Amino acid sequence: MSPKNLVSIIMGSHSDYETLKHAEEILIEFQIPYEIQVISAHRTPELMFDFAKSASKKGIQVIIAGAGGAAHLPGMVSALTTLPVLAVPVQSKSLNGLDSLLSIVQMPGGIPTATFAIGNAGATNAALFAIQIISLHDKNLAQKLVQWRKNRADKALDGNEIVQEKYLKSLKKQGKKEV
Amino acid sequence: MSPKNLVSIIMGSHSDYETLKHAEEILIEFQIPYEIQVISAHRTPELMFDFAKSASKKGIQVIIAGAGGAAHLPGMVSALTTLPVLAVPVQSKSLNGLDSLLSIVQMPGGIPTATFAIGNAGATNAALFAIQIISLHDKNLAQKLVQWRKNRADKALDGNEIVQEKYLKSLKKQGKKEV
Amino acid sequence: MSPKNLVSIIMGSHSDYETLKHAEEILIEFQIPYEIQVISAHRTPELMFDFAKSASKKGIQVIIAGAGGAAHLPGMVSALTTLPVLAVPVQSKSLNGLDSLLSIVQMPGGIPTATFAIGNAGATNAALFAIQIISLHDKNLAQKLVQWRKNRADKALDGNEIVQEKYLKSLKKQGKKEV
Amino acid sequence: MSPKNLVSIIMGSHSDYETLKHAEEILIEFQIPYEIQVISAHRTPELMFDFAKSASKKGIQVIIAGAGGAAHLPGMVSALTTLPVLAVPVQSKSLNGLDSLLSIVQMPGGIPTATFAIGNAGATNAALFAIQIISLHDKNLAQKLVQWRKNRADKALDGNEIVQEKYLKSLKKQGKKEV
Amino acid sequence: MSPKNLVSIIMGSHSDYETLKHAEEILIEFQIPYEIQVISAHRTPELMFDFAKSASKKGIQVIIAGAGGAAHLPGMVSALTTLPVLAVPVQSKSLNGLDSLLSIVQMPGGIPTATFAIGNAGATNAALFAIQIISLHDKNLAQKLVQWRKNRADKALDGNEIVQEKYLKSLKKQGKKEV
Amino acid sequence: MSPKNLVSIIMGSHSDYETLKHAEEILIEFQIPYEIQVISAHRTPELMFDFAKSASKKGIQVIIAGAGGAAHLPGMVSALTTLPVLAVPVQSKSLNGLDSLLSIVQMPGGIPTATFAIGNAGATNAALFAIQIISLHDKNLAQKLVQWRKNRADKALDGNEIVQEKYLKSLKKQGKKEV
Amino acid sequence: MSPKNLVSIIMGSHSDYETLKHAEEILIEFQIPYEIQVISAHRTPELMFDFAKSASKKGIQVIIAGAGGAAHLPGMVSALTTLPVLAVPVQSKSLNGLDSLLSIVQMPGGIPTATFAIGNAGATNAALFAIQIISLHDKNLAQKLVQWRKNRADKALDGNEIVQEKYLKSLKKQGKKEV
Amino acid sequence: MSPKNLVSIIMGSHSDYETLKHAEEILIEFQIPYEIQVISAHRTPELMFDFAKSASKKGIQVIIAGAGGAAHLPGMVSALTTLPVLAVPVQSKSLNGLDSLLSIVQMPGGIPTATFAIGNAGATNAALFAIQIISLHDKNLAQKLVQWRKNRADKALDGNEIVQEKYLKSLKKQGKKEV
Repeated sequence: MSPKNLVSIIMGSHSDYETLKHAEEILIEFQIPYEIQVISAHRTPELMFDFAKSASKKGIQVIIAGAGGAAHLPGMVSALTTLPVLAVPVQSKSLNGLDSLLSIVQMPGGIPTATFAIGNAGATNAALFAIQIISLHDKNLAQKLVQWRKNRADKALDGNEIVQEKYLKSLKKQGKKEV
Repeated sequence: MSPKNLVSIIMGSHSDYETLKHAEEILIEFQIPYEIQVISAHRTPELMFDFAKSASKKGIQVIIAGAGGAAHLPGMVSALTTLPVLAVPVQSKSLNGLDSLLSIVQMPGGIPTATFAIGNAGATNAALFAIQIISLHDKNLAQKLVQWRKNRADKALDGNEIVQEKYLKSLKKQGKKEV
Repeated sequence: MSPKNLVSIIMGSHSDYETLKHAEEILIEFQIPYEIQVISAHRTPELMFDFAKSASKKGIQVIIAGAGGAAHLPGMVSALTTLPVLAVPVQSKSLNGLDSLLSIVQMPGGIPTATFAIGNAGATNAALFAIQIISLHDKNLAQKLVQWRKNRADKALDGNEIVQEKYLKSLKKQGKKEV
Repeated sequence: MSPKNLVSIIMGSHSDYETLKHAEEILIEFQIPYEIQVISAHRTPELMFDFAKSASKKGIQVIIAGAGGAAHLPGMVSALTTLPVLAVPVQSKSLNGLDSLLSIVQMPGGIPTATFAIGNAGATNAALFAIQIISLHDKNLAQKLVQWRKNRADKALDGNEIVQEKYLKSLKKQGKKEV
Repeated sequence: MSPKNLVSIIMGSHSDYETLKHAEEILIEFQIPYEIQVISAHRTPELMFDFAKSASKKGIQVIIAGAGGAAHLPGMVSALTTLPVLAVPVQSKSLNGLDSLLSIVQMPGGIPTATFAIGNAGATNAALFAIQIISLHDKNLAQKLVQWRKNRADKALDGNEIVQEKYLKSLKKQGKKEV
Repeated sequence: MSPKNLVSIIMGSHSDYETLKHAEEILIEFQIPYEIQVISAHRTPELMFDFAKSASKKGIQVIIAGAGGAAHLPGMVSALTTLPVLAVPVQSKSLNGLDSLLSIVQMPGGIPTATFAIGNAGATNAALFAIQIISLHDKNLAQKLVQWRKNRADKALDGNEIVQEKYLKSLKKQGKKEV
Repeated sequence: MSPKNLVSIIMGSHSDYETLKHAEEILIEFQIPYEIQVISAHRTPELMFDFAKSASKKGIQVIIAGAGGAAHLPGMVSALTTLPVLAVPVQSKSLNGLDSLLSIVQMPGGIPTATFAIGNAGATNAALFAIQIISLHDKNLAQKLVQWRKNRADKALDGNEIVQEKYLKSLKKQGKKEV
Repeated sequence: MSPKNLVSIIMGSHSDYETLKHAEEILIEFQIPYEIQVISAHRTPELMFDFAKSASKKGIQVIIAGAGGAAHLPGMVSALTTLPVLAVPVQSKSLNGLDSLLSIVQMPGGIPTATFAIGNAGATNAALFAIQIISLHDKNLAQKLVQWRKNRADKALDGNEIVQEKYLKSLKKQGKKEV
């Protein structure tokens, strides 16, 4: 039997998938059972209500919600559940996601929504944050996460190597040796 | 028997009343039967749902909704009714209402929310706009509105008189006559 | 005999048509008789005056006005008529429509202009809002609108199906079944 | 024996306490064992390193970090631990906290920081979010939270009663009865 | 006989006088005959039309127009006359005059409005700029303006002297002499 | 003998020419004798000083100055001459010209710089404004300008005709006649 | 004989002294010989030219320049000397120093101006940065700076103690002991 | 033996190299021995600590640090060394570098970071500023810099010549001679 889904990814519109798939990729990489769906606060409000009201009972532990423009989905879901809601402001066309960010982050005292960066980085980070929450009670996952970060640091150092190669070439061109 | 309420003023928090009362004053001045209440999208979402779903049946024709910060009330009510929703972005503490404005005005195509200026002017104008809608089928009210605007223009001219008095004094001081 | 035009779409420049046509499409879809024209507050101010002063007498019930940059058309028309004016801030080149939005929405108390989102979504919504106003006294139209929204919700769910398909494929790839 | 502290509140400067105390109040209200201290990313970076590196071992489950201006504390602590870090952008003097917000929320993919609203509301919400995380494995706490929200909704309705009283007075003054 | 008024100061509201009086003071100091009045683009549009259409015939050479929020007065007057219009964005309550500035400065190609700084400095400068225009054909005035600037430079140096005094005191306190 | 140049166009960098040429085109269209050159406040400050100090003596009546980013050219030239300086904020790469606009328009009281819109529209308008200043003492030019505006209005109406044609086609498609 | 002044503080207006005195205090604390004066790019441009051209010859090593609004002083001085110029954006009235910041920091490639935070913190930091530059060739000063930072860190910890005291009181009130 | 590296360029991510290479080019042009590497405050914080703590001992005199988004690298390195840190805000995707700029420039009093323009111009200028610091004790370098600026001014004048050629052609086309 498959394990219960722990994370639910929702997004306000199908077009937000290009952003939210970066959250999905992280969850797959860490083998976190998850579900994903389009739920619009504005076009399918009843569906949103039912989703938010039942998420906890289904065993969901964290909700990742992405939306753009006047982005009401994360805040409204936050109002309807006490599960942690992690929000991803999707980059909008005219105002570059500043509208999405402010619509999401400026929640009133009492109803928290955890907000991440605008766009892809925010989606990646929301998923990682979900894993950080889950790993509070899952030591294996916690270790996996520590390892993942190490790999990430190594990648940063790989990037450094490319810069170093260019640097050495440039030194040679100037007739110098590396100091 | 009292007439049915035509306009419903709602606001996200009791503290928004300082702004929304400017809408109320206009409705009283024009003798439009109205109701007014605090309904929070975030703290009382079910109440908001019930309100939005039943407003039309009660005979309400226009909803005026004010909220600040991550202001979701006007957009969510717009999603739950096909009555015209007039939104007032309430001035917020840290971002001066820019967050309120963008949270409200940047609604996705399909679910319109009519947005007015941040703060008191927006509240006044939402009420006047409600009257403009109602007066499409009420000629007396339409005439009253035309008269109200004329008075307003006269007031602008009264303001002008104060400036003129200062101007004349200033001319005298310079030993000149008005040209 | 054709019915009277109920909605008048105006725009500050011919180039705004790319935005405002999204309003036109909605009116055509709902079979609302409408007129459409270029009227510039700055280049044809007399024309604007005449238009605004005579719109009500012609039977127009709602004006949709789009403009960009220092967008004065919606506010000036609002000052010259008591018909409801629905404004669409057109996305500008350098400031992405923030200038258009603030020029339109920050009207002083006394002269309301209902403002919608920057760009295409705003044009779509202005037309839908016009229909919401008209349908206050047209039950058939009101029902059509309710149906339109339902279709829209279904479309949102269609978008969901595409996401679900990708999800199922991804689950298979991981050797899992949907939970 | 006292229970282990589950939440650690840190802030970049003593002056941020006026904001962060709103997080503290919530933790006290919910009887969550917590610690609180001033740790500056810029003035005491080694202390910050030691804190972030050892927090998990001490049994801390959630870190709440507040900072203003070029606010680096939450992001740096996030980089040094895999515990969930909840960030509160403190309102700054010249740019009203927009600098604090962007410095915190725009973290690169890989190192998540959960961001809440600028100022007091953000502090309140960070603490509530910490409780939401902890209550995933503490049913009593989860119930307490649900009850807390209900009380909060009731308070919203109390605010409504004040508005209703004013409304009734106003109706009387106009010689009307409530509809 | 008094000379003809050369400059006309107009403002959108009586409350703008606190800003525009700084323009008036400069005109009085330079003995430029001027007129001043409240003309609202939104509340008294016909008056604005008549004013703009007749200003040139009355001998007015420069118009100074101040307005705040969705500030349409300067741009509309610019559309109705070919006299130079100098605009002063008045500081608004919620958005600090950014709305006023953008509403005024972002005029479309074809209808120029010369824009100055938000608030008092802008009013002072609009008046000085009017004098710069007039002095193109008035050598005495041109010389007066040069002298005025010299005095202003002297004032800047007076400000310097106050700083120097503090500096000397501070040097003494440290037991040093000025270098 | 050629007439003296009345307008001098300067720009901070050769790359600004793409914007400033829109000013040049207007001056050519109106046959205003002009000069044009690259003068950088930052790279050729002495040249800028000499230019600004001698412009008036050469018979120049209006200076049009364009610059982008930390745009100091217009303000510095304004400080060094009492000729009217018309500034064009050139659209910058990262901040879209908001930096250019604020660097130019927010001049302190005492040293006025007349500011126009960001980019091409601003360049066109600065040239038209120069003509408005010159035409105060040149009736032929004034008439030419009035005629130019009329043509411009006609062009706006041409734009309208294109919209009308589409409208008629659309009406036909719906089986309707124009109302 | 007194030592030569190493740092020169200049400011655009006497009113900027309230900000720049925070730079002065640091220089006095570190006993760096300095001079200070009001030099306006706009009101005393020749003085600015002379100052910038001669600063290096007088032995000045670092210039600290503060200005607000359309702040041209730091950039213009940078253009006229190859000494390091450290700029302090002074908080402006209407736009809170965002105008000052962008006018200063967005310098074109070729003419660098080192920019610090808006307001008092920026002034403090410009002076500390001057000391960092000077201490590259002054080991005593370098050590003093290291010590200064340690004291500053201790102060941060003093701030922590105040928070700890409140914390202990709060624990007692709850009948708990510190963990 | 090669001379010691005087400047160290660091960047938060390999992708920032496209920006920082403009700093590198200047250092190569001026033959300043330098090192360059990728060091991420968030992904390799320990590396950053070690780098910052040891830079001074290795003989580095100036650090150039570039980063984007929530850009913590420059400020954190500033906190860990008393060497001058010159920061380059890298242009970010969604907010165009405004987030990078504010994250870097708004440092608290006590820990200075010298900030330059967003993007390439900032990188060029950071390197030039490093040279300005080094040249305080290197007269040859100081002279080279003065010469470099002269060449740059000449280049500006070359740009002018292109504009002049176009101007002459345009004059001919109009049948005029240059005045």
